[in-house]
Amino acid sequence: MRGAVDPFPVSVEDIRAAAFRLHGAAVRTPLLEFSDLNQRTGGRVFIKPENLQVSGSFKFRGARNRISQLTESERRAGIVAWSSGNHAQGIAIAARLAGVNAAIVMPSDAPQIKIERTRAQEAEIVFYDRYTEDREAIGAKLAEERGAVLVPSYDDVHIIAGQGTAGLEIAEDLSVLGLRPDVLLCCCGGGGLIAGSALALRAFFPDVAVWAVEPEGFDDTARSLAAGERLQNDPSAKTICDALMAPTPGHMTFEINRAVLAGGLAVSDDETRAAIRYAATELKLVAEPGGAVALAAALTGKLELAGKTAVVVISGGNIDPELLAEILTF
Amino acid sequence: MRGAVDPFPVSVEDIRAAAFRLHGAAVRTPLLEFSDLNQRTGGRVFIKPENLQVSGSFKFRGARNRISQLTESERRAGIVAWSSGNHAQGIAIAARLAGVNAAIVMPSDAPQIKIERTRAQEAEIVFYDRYTEDREAIGAKLAEERGAVLVPSYDDVHIIAGQGTAGLEIAEDLSVLGLRPDVLLCCCGGGGLIAGSALALRAFFPDVAVWAVEPEGFDDTARSLAAGERLQNDPSAKTICDALMAPTPGHMTFEINRAVLAGGLAVSDDETRAAIRYAATELKLVAEPGGAVALAAALTGKLELAGKTAVVVISGGNIDPELLAEILTF
Repeated sequence: MRGAVDPFPVSVEDIRAAAFRLHGAAVRTPLLEFSDLNQRTGGRVFIKPENLQVSGSFKFRGARNRISQLTESERRAGIVAWSSGNHAQGIAIAARLAGVNAAIVMPSDAPQIKIERTRAQEAEIVFYDRYTEDREAIGAKLAEERGAVLVPSYDDVHIIAGQGTAGLEIAEDLSVLGLRPDVLLCCCGGGGLIAGSALALRAFFPDVAVWAVEPEGFDDTARSLAAGERLQNDPSAKTICDALMAPTPGHMTFEINRAVLAGGLAVSDDETRAAIRYAATELKLVAEPGGAVALAAALTGKLELAGKTAVVVISGGNIDPELLAEILTF
Repeated sequence: MRGAVDPFPVSVEDIRAAAFRLHGAAVRTPLLEFSDLNQRTGGRVFIKPENLQVSGSFKFRGARNRISQLTESERRAGIVAWSSGNHAQGIAIAARLAGVNAAIVMPSDAPQIKIERTRAQEAEIVFYDRYTEDREAIGAKLAEERGAVLVPSYDDVHIIAGQGTAGLEIAEDLSVLGLRPDVLLCCCGGGGLIAGSALALRAFFPDVAVWAVEPEGFDDTARSLAAGERLQNDPSAKTICDALMAPTPGHMTFEINRAVLAGGLAVSDDETRAAIRYAATELKLVAEPGGAVALAAALTGKLELAGKTAVVVISGGNIDPELLAEILTF
């Protein structure tokens, strides 16, 4: 399906091939429906709970897809990745399962739970300062020194195809239900999950409106889509959504997203906290801040969902228990 | 399937009929698998997450099945039920959906979240003291005064058949996966969920060992199974598992359970707290105390699961946010 009919670096066939590689290793997360969420929004709203995925977020999908395609000599040399935490865990687990050594560059202020879980998977961790150092440079240098393969967290064909399997599953499950989605709400950091998922979902449902949801201060994709070019976030911006702090849209992901997304929405940290509380008390699902922004957009009516069929991705659930407790008792 | 070949008051055909009545109203909860849980137990352990069910617990199944069979005159007279909270919510939602008035007898110390949710469904609540008053007598008197139909929480053919649809779904999903379960671990209060689910699951897999899990001090079913007769709990016993405080096995449920269960296991409140914490941090699922006892039994190795295929029911997730927060930061 590449070439004239498909101008993107990632094709739906790439995503189907990734789904084949993930089969039996990744969780085929269900589509969940909740009467309270339908009542509140006036629509028919499904949750895609990627917090139930291996590693606690969708990131295992891309990591597994990339690592399962390493050559024998690449496997021996090992891999290097950088990540605020979820890509780290996805890579660490996928690498361990494949018997490949992984070194992971993580910010020193990453949530403790993400650091511990990455370490528990026997990955080597190299810390950096999120506000003063360049993780890409550190990762590239490390990979060069070791002759290791660098596995980016979003700007990579295999990673985008792997994350897109989430969208493929959504499309398949809606098809079985005989439903046509009007809207997909999905978080956006570097943009790999939404790019791949939008490609897969639009192959089934060309008219679906796919919206990126970002934290306020990190709405680089929303602004870039509006401007038609890649814009940066203010480097001093802060958010509780540690998973969505990419400084700018990816090259490859933005090339896809500018063509397939309807636009971008931003939610405040308080709206995200309320969504985490709602997920725990009403949906009985534990969502991390970055995993809850799309739900926050749905709950706050950033997009009118009344009368619509919508899918909301909860992308991960790796939240420190102390933060979850604080949000529950706020 | 009744009669000579099926000595029980509830048949598998009753459960299949209930599944038909629940279709489109109840959530068909998925079977979930988690690599960490498999590693920890050494088995292949699936979770049946009834915390994702309408009303936040499996209780909607039985309530819906019973209420959808009311005659027109019964519908007009309304229904009466008693419940520590989850049956109340299941009844209240099912009654509201069916346009039937419901009065519910609840203990005055029921979790606030369960009282609020029951009230939010427009049900009338009548409080009683769990330690000094007899809820069955209060409910029966109320029903008589009003000419209303009493809907018991477990000792009822329709309720047991409704709850059994959870087991039917487990059996269907395992069949699709080509798997044969060795063990089902399920909580047991009055015994309706486990009785119905065991009947359904054993119709597919006659050799499956179904174990009841109860809180220490409320192990009436475990002791009754061992003794061969219905025994009481010490009326002064206490537990955080508010959903599992039935004083003695039900007449009808015990008649079934003594024939189909492998036995009973008891877990301490601390083991249950650890299971709630594990569910939130590792499985990203919010479980209430009574909903987490079967998981507690699996995690603490009360039953050897190494090399086995097992299903663990998380029966509900209606926990006060303050209690969940306390358990998360313990």
